[in-house]
Amino acid sequence: MSEARLLSLVEALRILPGVGVKSAQRMAFHLLQHDREGAMRLATALDGAVHDIRHCERCHTFTEHTLCDVCADPERDANVLCIVETPADQSALERTGSYKGLYFVLMGRLSPLDGVGVRDIGVGPLLERIEREPAAEVILATSFTAEGEATAHVIGEALKARGITVSRLARGVPAGSELEYVDLSTIAHALADRR
Amino acid sequence: MSEARLLSLVEALRILPGVGVKSAQRMAFHLLQHDREGAMRLATALDGAVHDIRHCERCHTFTEHTLCDVCADPERDANVLCIVETPADQSALERTGSYKGLYFVLMGRLSPLDGVGVRDIGVGPLLERIEREPAAEVILATSFTAEGEATAHVIGEALKARGITVSRLARGVPAGSELEYVDLSTIAHALADRR
Repeated sequence: MSEARLLSLVEALRILPGVGVKSAQRMAFHLLQHDREGAMRLATALDGAVHDIRHCERCHTFTEHTLCDVCADPERDANVLCIVETPADQSALERTGSYKGLYFVLMGRLSPLDGVGVRDIGVGPLLERIEREPAAEVILATSFTAEGEATAHVIGEALKARGITVSRLARGVPAGSELEYVDLSTIAHALADRR
Repeated sequence: MSEARLLSLVEALRILPGVGVKSAQRMAFHLLQHDREGAMRLATALDGAVHDIRHCERCHTFTEHTLCDVCADPERDANVLCIVETPADQSALERTGSYKGLYFVLMGRLSPLDGVGVRDIGVGPLLERIEREPAAEVILATSFTAEGEATAHVIGEALKARGITVSRLARGVPAGSELEYVDLSTIAHALADRR
């Protein structure tokens, strides 16, 4: 594969997370040999997304409009604000159908080892938003990983300093699981938070 | 992620081999949040490759021209033809620097279970090429998997029926490996083919 166009395609595919040289070559080969139409669809979709998708002015998630669907919905309860790391996390919460408040999407989480600090996630815009639109309660729904916990801690402290009620998603035994197979730290937390 | 443009991007990314919904979402998120420039480069590369890359008229590999670099090189020995499955396999052989003949790239291998038959790989064009440009020897360099072996068998029989000398890459113990860790079928073949 020494052709310039082919090399640029392989090189360009490597920007995708988790794609190394070998997978990129395999992808380029597959597209050119078996799915040129799909390749053109992908080119168009990339172009369309890059040009039309921006951040929602209210919650910071991806949207094609000024406000995303959730923020634009007058039925949502503006008194509760749920803070998540990514649009995918927001979408998981939405699918439960049991949350009617608004969201703020950080678009990341603290990860000092990867050079992601407080300024790189949307903490500034979050605090501005809270001042502009005060919420009675803020729910921290970041991941239960070391990085997600650190993110929740930093944001929680900043909000508490402003006198805002802050809660965190409950940690406990997942629905449908047998205790025997649940990791010990989860059981310990479920015990401590029993109700 | 309920936005139309975002959904089309996730959908379009799924045409890539080995990419499911979750990875496609992760890729779309990564591109839009961290690498919009890379996404545009990818769109351009896809577009360029689909429009400009075709098959070499002589060996069937990908090229932007009528003939690929190898086929256009007058120094190559036209008496030997090496048959490989993919451009990546051809490139591996080229990197050894020890082959000076020409190639024919099948762009696939027989795989009856996946519905890939003799007509779907370039056997027809290969036989036409052999008639147009007879070679003294044809080396079968398809993979040493069940499918690659079947491909080599079918092509080998067709070529032998036309009175052409056919050889196969040697199968044996890989360079640098300790016998203890080599699989038994490889050792058995290396024993049988000892020289």
